[in-house]
Amino acid sequence: MANSKYEYVKKFEVEDKLPPCNWVILRIDGCHFHRFSAVHDFEKPNDVNALMLMNSCAVAMLEHFPDIAFDYGVSDEYSFIWKETSQFYQRRASKILSLGVSFFTSMYVIKWRDFFPHKELKEPPYFDARIVCYPRAKIVRDYLSWRQVDCHINNQYNTCFWKLVQSGKSEKEAQELLKGTLAKDKNEMLFTQFGINYDKLPAMFKKGSCVYKDHVEETVKIDEAGNPVKRRRQMVVVDHIDIIGNKFWKDHPNILKED
Amino acid sequence: MANSKYEYVKKFEVEDKLPPCNWVILRIDGCHFHRFSAVHDFEKPNDVNALMLMNSCAVAMLEHFPDIAFDYGVSDEYSFIWKETSQFYQRRASKILSLGVSFFTSMYVIKWRDFFPHKELKEPPYFDARIVCYPRAKIVRDYLSWRQVDCHINNQYNTCFWKLVQSGKSEKEAQELLKGTLAKDKNEMLFTQFGINYDKLPAMFKKGSCVYKDHVEETVKIDEAGNPVKRRRQMVVVDHIDIIGNKFWKDHPNILKED
Amino acid sequence: MANSKYEYVKKFEVEDKLPPCNWVILRIDGCHFHRFSAVHDFEKPNDVNALMLMNSCAVAMLEHFPDIAFDYGVSDEYSFIWKETSQFYQRRASKILSLGVSFFTSMYVIKWRDFFPHKELKEPPYFDARIVCYPRAKIVRDYLSWRQVDCHINNQYNTCFWKLVQSGKSEKEAQELLKGTLAKDKNEMLFTQFGINYDKLPAMFKKGSCVYKDHVEETVKIDEAGNPVKRRRQMVVVDHIDIIGNKFWKDHPNILKED
Amino acid sequence: MANSKYEYVKKFEVEDKLPPCNWVILRIDGCHFHRFSAVHDFEKPNDVNALMLMNSCAVAMLEHFPDIAFDYGVSDEYSFIWKETSQFYQRRASKILSLGVSFFTSMYVIKWRDFFPHKELKEPPYFDARIVCYPRAKIVRDYLSWRQVDCHINNQYNTCFWKLVQSGKSEKEAQELLKGTLAKDKNEMLFTQFGINYDKLPAMFKKGSCVYKDHVEETVKIDEAGNPVKRRRQMVVVDHIDIIGNKFWKDHPNILKED
Repeated sequence: MANSKYEYVKKFEVEDKLPPCNWVILRIDGCHFHRFSAVHDFEKPNDVNALMLMNSCAVAMLEHFPDIAFDYGVSDEYSFIWKETSQFYQRRASKILSLGVSFFTSMYVIKWRDFFPHKELKEPPYFDARIVCYPRAKIVRDYLSWRQVDCHINNQYNTCFWKLVQSGKSEKEAQELLKGTLAKDKNEMLFTQFGINYDKLPAMFKKGSCVYKDHVEETVKIDEAGNPVKRRRQMVVVDHIDIIGNKFWKDHPNILKED
Repeated sequence: MANSKYEYVKKFEVEDKLPPCNWVILRIDGCHFHRFSAVHDFEKPNDVNALMLMNSCAVAMLEHFPDIAFDYGVSDEYSFIWKETSQFYQRRASKILSLGVSFFTSMYVIKWRDFFPHKELKEPPYFDARIVCYPRAKIVRDYLSWRQVDCHINNQYNTCFWKLVQSGKSEKEAQELLKGTLAKDKNEMLFTQFGINYDKLPAMFKKGSCVYKDHVEETVKIDEAGNPVKRRRQMVVVDHIDIIGNKFWKDHPNILKED
Repeated sequence: MANSKYEYVKKFEVEDKLPPCNWVILRIDGCHFHRFSAVHDFEKPNDVNALMLMNSCAVAMLEHFPDIAFDYGVSDEYSFIWKETSQFYQRRASKILSLGVSFFTSMYVIKWRDFFPHKELKEPPYFDARIVCYPRAKIVRDYLSWRQVDCHINNQYNTCFWKLVQSGKSEKEAQELLKGTLAKDKNEMLFTQFGINYDKLPAMFKKGSCVYKDHVEETVKIDEAGNPVKRRRQMVVVDHIDIIGNKFWKDHPNILKED
Repeated sequence: MANSKYEYVKKFEVEDKLPPCNWVILRIDGCHFHRFSAVHDFEKPNDVNALMLMNSCAVAMLEHFPDIAFDYGVSDEYSFIWKETSQFYQRRASKILSLGVSFFTSMYVIKWRDFFPHKELKEPPYFDARIVCYPRAKIVRDYLSWRQVDCHINNQYNTCFWKLVQSGKSEKEAQELLKGTLAKDKNEMLFTQFGINYDKLPAMFKKGSCVYKDHVEETVKIDEAGNPVKRRRQMVVVDHIDIIGNKFWKDHPNILKED
């Protein structure tokens, strides 16, 4: 029984190869996570376990897809930078998009119990995703700076907002109090009203999370003289550092090396 | 702290709205499911629990996304037909693609335990997905016919193949024996060598699975005279029937009704 | 001397095939024709020679590209409807777009002298073009209705505007006088102020121009008895008729016949 | 009379903005120019007037569209490099494509008589066109190298081919004689059989034509002492030089300067 009579329907498929020599950024974002985090009682403004679950999935992504060079995450959002030379499924956008977001989602549900052993998953977490191409490494850096600035702005706002709410204000009142305030006003408010030194908050909240492969030195054994024998090994690290300035990129020149 | 300096990177995002008045088919497909089904000891050629897990996720899709009109599934593949009038996220392809495949994946992992209570998930299931637009209902029907013919061809082949393997042939020998055989040869082989009447195999294996909303009559209570009080109600049904001929579509004219 | 070292640059070309089973409309539009028509002293609001030059080029298009089913033109704009089954250059958008607009432009310059024997071409006429796909014949009809309604609205406005200007008003005054007027106000103004019965204006101005192949009867010779011998022959016609109502399409069912 | 009922058809138009920070190459190519050049008796293998007509149109392009940085032409083909920063019609591909090819075509017909005063245009010249985006200046250089290598290969082949034909061989025999020959074989054949030193052929044939803006020094007047007063002025030049090596680009660093 031949299938040829109907096979013409395949002709409606559209070729969607991404242009060569472009860095490909896959960004995923929790869908309806405002509700999802309320349903699951996430701590406000930052739930450490929820962030670590996201980070753990991002590590799995980097390990699973060899063409990912760098991940950056904040809140319920993660960006995955695919090498400009990647030939993963001939750079077909729908493959990168669907396999990436599907794998991440799968990991999120599987790992849920590791980070929330006492919380049942009450509704399915799921994510939207998009793909954007960037023609040069320096624009990828600007992209990452854009996300990290956003992380900072949102975190500062949310920290103030939830402190106000936790101190008895309604959400509406908190919103009103923050309208039009500048960065330094918010730092001031945190310090004087709540005794919080913003700079001392965890780096993960302020800087977001970077996931990448790095060379680390590890002790593999102790020799007969009692000295540690060390070896450099490449491993995936999660870090919460500034990626806007040049230092990180000077220290890790291979991540965004252009062909 | 303004973010404007880096916001230009948003301009690299590409508008990907699907054309109006087109039916949108989202097809998902298990990635590396050959290995995944081996790792999890799926029965060959068809694992009833694995198929029912897929169907259960497909039901959840239809219930969750109101613009899906019909699902059709076979093996580790499912097609979701979005109404031609859908305005879901303004018809942005990446939204439909990512949210659809992510939600399905999430359900698959969550429901795993319902269908495989004694099997641990050993690796993350994940799916690729693609989107294809079809300008007319009759082409959507041809698309579905294409998938259902494929279901039949593959099932017949796989039934023979695994029977041969289970009877002691190597996979290579089984392949050789089946090379060039016609449909009737395979039916003959099943009947004479293995005593199997292909027509008597479960419809789910031969026809795949259709998921759609239908009006069903249900007894809501028994009245004082002891007679059942019935009510017509719309509910999601899973069916294993022919969708190539006209009968199904005459019986369900609303599913592919064109604007 | 091999060229292979540089040939990788071809990989940056993007496939741009238009989806099957869609009608393809190529619309061209004069670029800076406001100035072009001023520079060449076109009569206002309608220059018969300029319109006939456009029509003549549109006839050439229909004769040259066999997959064009119908042209519709108004002012310095023309739409060309390509059959939904067209396989012209495998439906590559850039081919249809570039060859269509380039051929039209070439004809426009070549034929200029036929319609303006006493006017020198003072600057190069050129056109922009776009391509839009329509999934069904009835939407193509709506597209044509959209253009023909536009033709009527613009022509009525422009007729009033230029009559006012020619009667001594400034362009600004004319604009002010017409602001907010309805169709019947404009007809009234034309009749009472300028003695013009709008309905009696040339159909080409009010309805635009349709170009298509039609069967016409022509006398091929006179037989011995002195009677004309007629033969039906297909030829390209230019017509100025209503294409919003059903009559034209009932009379010419083949033009937008769907596969 | 409102047009709103039909205006929904505009929604079928697809946004086609080219990605930012990419160089945009518009390449046009004569359609059926094999026949066109035969019909108009172009000299083989190179017709100087036909090439100069192409060059003259390319100069007009550079002067008309301020965002074009460089043109390169060979035979009936021309590439136009649009600056990576161009915001011409918001980078809409169909605008750049259609306006570019239409303007070029218009100039070609208008200027025909300047280069072929004694030849009537017997059929309309028209061109196809395509657009390709290149993310970096160095890839644009590779693109140009690709075209210039092609120019050389084709010119060498065509020079031999037409010499053989003009010496009495049939086109088929000439083809056979050249099959499998290397560059040096062809040079040898030209020299020994036809007394032609390939290196001495006009640079326009061997290198193609480059069009760009350059600073030239011109004498604006002679002062009282009889000395020429010179001024540097930017003007469009047509040159036939190597653009594969670094020299040209070192001498003209602004042409492909990246933002």
